[in-house]
Amino acid sequence: MSQSQTRALVLFSGGQDSTTCLAWALHNYDYVETVGFNYGQRHVAELECRTNILGRLRNEYCYSEEKLGQDHMLDFQTLYQISDTALTSGAEIKMTERGLPSTFVPGRNLLFFTLASAIAYRRGFSAVIGGMCETDFSGYPDCRRDVLNDLQAAVSGGMDYPIEFVTPLMYKTKAETWKLAFDLEGGDFIELIKNDTHTCYKGDRSALHLWGYGCGECPACLIRKEGYEQYIAASNSK
Amino acid sequence: MSQSQTRALVLFSGGQDSTTCLAWALHNYDYVETVGFNYGQRHVAELECRTNILGRLRNEYCYSEEKLGQDHMLDFQTLYQISDTALTSGAEIKMTERGLPSTFVPGRNLLFFTLASAIAYRRGFSAVIGGMCETDFSGYPDCRRDVLNDLQAAVSGGMDYPIEFVTPLMYKTKAETWKLAFDLEGGDFIELIKNDTHTCYKGDRSALHLWGYGCGECPACLIRKEGYEQYIAASNSK
Repeated sequence: MSQSQTRALVLFSGGQDSTTCLAWALHNYDYVETVGFNYGQRHVAELECRTNILGRLRNEYCYSEEKLGQDHMLDFQTLYQISDTALTSGAEIKMTERGLPSTFVPGRNLLFFTLASAIAYRRGFSAVIGGMCETDFSGYPDCRRDVLNDLQAAVSGGMDYPIEFVTPLMYKTKAETWKLAFDLEGGDFIELIKNDTHTCYKGDRSALHLWGYGCGECPACLIRKEGYEQYIAASNSK
Repeated sequence: MSQSQTRALVLFSGGQDSTTCLAWALHNYDYVETVGFNYGQRHVAELECRTNILGRLRNEYCYSEEKLGQDHMLDFQTLYQISDTALTSGAEIKMTERGLPSTFVPGRNLLFFTLASAIAYRRGFSAVIGGMCETDFSGYPDCRRDVLNDLQAAVSGGMDYPIEFVTPLMYKTKAETWKLAFDLEGGDFIELIKNDTHTCYKGDRSALHLWGYGCGECPACLIRKEGYEQYIAASNSK
């Protein structure tokens, strides 16, 4: 391992955004590893997706172990335990007003970044890459760049180790994220995103639509579907 | 539950510092709950201590459920998993230079504060209290107040909920922490701290010294022992 190599750890859930981020990282860093979190709930479908995607990147896209290294899978049942913590009536109303599910654990992305940073520290990496985006979806305040800047300062100071939180999708629309995937790896990669990534809140993988699997009705499916339609419309108009 | 009540969640490990913080919180907030983390390793001794201490505060110090409420015990094996993550040789040297054990997970206190904040959010609390101290022990950079200020900004922004990280011991010497315990709850509480709190890195509880249980040789025992001796010397000189 050369000290001049650029190395990054990608927060990789198996969704569209983190898969696109992973492709982006493979084009922008010498060496990349991935980290995922298992915390029960709906994410079982995503966890299966991530194994498939990593396998296809290695086999069909020929990313060797020297380029796409170890996948770190962390159990994080603590999140599940917190989401079971009884709400006071005051907090419950506040959450309903915000339109977030009552099982939502606030600051979840802060925890993902901090845990990933601990691995990055131990592995000698200088960057953690995440697919957070403040353009399409404002329901989760911990996706905002100013929040991640504060966290980056806290983690760099708290580990006494400079670490960069890189968020290539932060200011992109979902249509632009579809286009980025195409630009990075071509049309077959768009098919991989459709077939192998998972976004649907309900875990619905019963039917394949033009934009991929999903219920087509939850907020995540709607954003993905509309983004795809806008991406196709923009491509056709050129 | 009145909305004008001041309510805080205390990071409570069963050690000297967090036990003193808990007493401080009971004197400074209307209602207090506690949170602890189980992540294997040496902390089994501390976890037994915390149950004993909470029981004694309820029974002997007569703190009712309306004052000292629920104890949240979170499993956090993720830390253990990260400490098992292979180190690159570069990172390993860096850690040895710092004098921290190679199993140390950097940023651990950031994770504790962020997880506690998620519970505080759900319970409608405005403060998380921790016994971090930058005076006596500089080995852990995530105990520093400037780091916690950055994290407080990240968590408040990331949860869209203002939360305060309160660290009453931050600038105290260990002798002053012993004195604070006395000032808050009297001489019997000093005996409780000696008998029922745990600090020793090695988990040694084989012999009771003047300053409590412990091996007497690890950094944590030395700080506790010297702090006690300074506290007694200062008390006698008055």
